[in-house]
Amino acid sequence: MGAQVRVCFLPSEIDPEVLQSSSALVIDLLRASTTICRALSSGARDVIPVETPGKAQELRNSIGRDGVLLGGERQGVIIEGFDLGNSPAEYLPERVAGKSIIFCSSNGSGALLAAGDAPRLAIAGLVNAAAAVEWLVAAPGDVLLVCSGQTGRFSAEDAACAGYLASRLVRRGLSPGNDAARAAILVAAEAGDHWQAFLEHTDHGRYLISLGFGPDLSTAAAVDSLPLVPEWNAGRVVYSSGGR
Amino acid sequence: MGAQVRVCFLPSEIDPEVLQSSSALVIDLLRASTTICRALSSGARDVIPVETPGKAQELRNSIGRDGVLLGGERQGVIIEGFDLGNSPAEYLPERVAGKSIIFCSSNGSGALLAAGDAPRLAIAGLVNAAAAVEWLVAAPGDVLLVCSGQTGRFSAEDAACAGYLASRLVRRGLSPGNDAARAAILVAAEAGDHWQAFLEHTDHGRYLISLGFGPDLSTAAAVDSLPLVPEWNAGRVVYSSGGR
Repeated sequence: MGAQVRVCFLPSEIDPEVLQSSSALVIDLLRASTTICRALSSGARDVIPVETPGKAQELRNSIGRDGVLLGGERQGVIIEGFDLGNSPAEYLPERVAGKSIIFCSSNGSGALLAAGDAPRLAIAGLVNAAAAVEWLVAAPGDVLLVCSGQTGRFSAEDAACAGYLASRLVRRGLSPGNDAARAAILVAAEAGDHWQAFLEHTDHGRYLISLGFGPDLSTAAAVDSLPLVPEWNAGRVVYSSGGR
Repeated sequence: MGAQVRVCFLPSEIDPEVLQSSSALVIDLLRASTTICRALSSGARDVIPVETPGKAQELRNSIGRDGVLLGGERQGVIIEGFDLGNSPAEYLPERVAGKSIIFCSSNGSGALLAAGDAPRLAIAGLVNAAAAVEWLVAAPGDVLLVCSGQTGRFSAEDAACAGYLASRLVRRGLSPGNDAARAAILVAAEAGDHWQAFLEHTDHGRYLISLGFGPDLSTAAAVDSLPLVPEWNAGRVVYSSGGR
């Protein structure tokens, strides 16, 4: 039996033994994956995920305000007292270059922390799909794709993104290793190449459109537009070019 | 907007507000749904779900041993000191007719208890799919299909069964109401009419085959073979003929 790619639809579904023997990707397509890729592409020094707005403020108080920004959302909108929300459009070079971003989103931050024990861990969306796959296959062995979900519930966009990555990995010789991986591949096939239309019909996509964040869906749907890998390194997410 | 059918892939994904305004079905295809349908079809008086083997023993001590059996499993096999496991093949009339069965399975029992606040609640598998759909549409309004999952993780067989029921409800005029409902319909389409082959390729199906329970997969795959609805009634599951 060769290497396997497994999927968790929620961080709570992570099997600790599987995590500890896999290269892992966390997926929060709308929007933390996309936003963090954009932040690092715009020259942010690093992104530090925390679980709650309170912990974000605490951490900033302890490491100092110099060169540090707070980013994140609750119910899709910027947190009071924060510098940035969770829209990739906000993470421009003039705003974030050289800065550390303490990041607190409703799903992606917690998913990263839940997957922190993986021997190799990075973040993936559609914007960096090819780079993330190269990063994965640069090391032999099993792969775990962790969907962030939506406040503890299944999210179709994360499942579809996981399925898209799993399909690419299957073409590189891995086998689907659990029920969720096989189901995710079916959801990705439904999305086909019509990512924006697919995202517009997901529960969270519709919600974001209702908040005026429709353009973020186009940004998230732009496959391979940001060829980098946000890589986990001892509690911080830093820029990597991937395995190439 | 007409009535909607929503799906939860895990009991933990239940939205209490949605539950309280929906007719709900709990699905544990391998095997509690199938086993409970068989038990009631074989003339069991009722099935009383409990969360742990300890609670099952306690309840039997309090209501008495007369006409009471303990049924259920851990890791797929009968619990020590119990009368019956969780194989539908054990629930024959000569064993269970007229009896109350205190039932403790790894996933289905907890899912039932988690969904207990629904105004109408029943159990569905493939064996009673048509009867369950009739039971649902006998009352107007939204529907919630709760997959039991496998020890807190996504299970393809429950998702496929939910998708199959959702497809039938869509043909009766309901709309898919969340991401999980739409994904479940895709998984059911993959199963097609080849339920047994599909079940043999799920994680839990393979596990059951490895334990020697392969015949239970055929029993679970027999669509509409047990036309009854195990209906929740104040903590007990009782026989109903459905809405007809």
